[in-house]
Amino acid sequence: MSNLIYGKNSFNEALLGKRIIKAYVLEGSPYLKQLRDKHIPYEICERRYLDKLTKSGNHQGIVAEVKEFRLASVEEMLKEKNGLIVILDGLKDPHNLGAIIRTCDCAGVDGVIYRKNRSVEVNDTVAKVASGALEYVKVAEVVNIASTLEYLKEKGYWVVGSDAGAKDYYDDLSYDMNTVLVIGSEGEGISRLVARECDYMVKLPMFGHINSLNASVAAGILIYGVLRGRKR
Amino acid sequence: MSNLIYGKNSFNEALLGKRIIKAYVLEGSPYLKQLRDKHIPYEICERRYLDKLTKSGNHQGIVAEVKEFRLASVEEMLKEKNGLIVILDGLKDPHNLGAIIRTCDCAGVDGVIYRKNRSVEVNDTVAKVASGALEYVKVAEVVNIASTLEYLKEKGYWVVGSDAGAKDYYDDLSYDMNTVLVIGSEGEGISRLVARECDYMVKLPMFGHINSLNASVAAGILIYGVLRGRKR
Repeated sequence: MSNLIYGKNSFNEALLGKRIIKAYVLEGSPYLKQLRDKHIPYEICERRYLDKLTKSGNHQGIVAEVKEFRLASVEEMLKEKNGLIVILDGLKDPHNLGAIIRTCDCAGVDGVIYRKNRSVEVNDTVAKVASGALEYVKVAEVVNIASTLEYLKEKGYWVVGSDAGAKDYYDDLSYDMNTVLVIGSEGEGISRLVARECDYMVKLPMFGHINSLNASVAAGILIYGVLRGRKR
Repeated sequence: MSNLIYGKNSFNEALLGKRIIKAYVLEGSPYLKQLRDKHIPYEICERRYLDKLTKSGNHQGIVAEVKEFRLASVEEMLKEKNGLIVILDGLKDPHNLGAIIRTCDCAGVDGVIYRKNRSVEVNDTVAKVASGALEYVKVAEVVNIASTLEYLKEKGYWVVGSDAGAKDYYDDLSYDMNTVLVIGSEGEGISRLVARECDYMVKLPMFGHINSLNASVAAGILIYGVLRGRKR
């Protein structure tokens, strides 16, 4: 029984992420009603069994066995023609990652790749915000985005980065090619080493005062921009 | 001194919303550093003065005078040519409203209108998520969206609603007209009475399994879709 979570917050998040395989609760637990309503298997146990399971007394009366998030490999995302892969370079906010995965399902994107460290990872908040899309969208973690881009270019992909300072607009391209769309982090954009691997840099038109979009909104406009470009 | 807020949470939200005109704090208050760092005027007072200001003892040692959110009128949003107004029909989530206002700044939208009741309103969470865009984007509250649409149609606007069941795609229109874009609520979409006022109904292409976008992402794609249509 490797994937155990415990405590109220972790339990609630896993519940929203629909990841619970089985719950371990105390008799008369306030969680029983939710578990029955959602048809989640549970076992009623004594406190000291929960203590033993978690090797601590810090479980707040709730322990659960959960499904692992299934990650994909970059290879699984490759297409012969008109592929579309989204790479997130240092995204920080799990709400943005969740919303982007949700958009990727809608747009039929072949996969989402993010950096394993100093970046947001798939967790229960991401699963919740993705509203079930995590079950269908391939998500891969990589150690080095620049070398992943080199690999994808060898496989026939063209890399399009988004940057407010770019010369070209996002709708100047037809995207009639295997495309990798690189989205930068909130606030800081695409890192220098990753930008160096981009074949194209594009920007969104801006007509306001603040002129900074939420990262998941910007990603949505860019992803749907690729689909629209291909339709022309 | 009408607009007073008090308590830790309200203060922190107003701080993020950049709405504080003046703060009232106790001597040695933990808020003093933030206030000095952000150059916000403050007055050091005794606890019983704070009690008197708030008519309660429930201020947690922090009271502040804040700017009212300035709302606009629908009239102020009217344009002669190629106007763009966004109407939100029953949106619920303040994060979505904030992100949409942020997008409207970027896209140079003339104004955002929402229903006054049973709908999210401008508050500090909205202001924070809008990242300063609330200072620039005209926002109006109306009692009845259907009659606001009738008024806008009289003024030469065409109403485009978004609905997953529509026949036309969002990029079938050129938007070469004064346009009102109607965004439905999360989950429920556009209400029947509002849908009846729409001249066009459009949808976004969907290629996935979940096929439901976050409301602020959908709004972003539709708003930038109008700009792109006009460029053709």
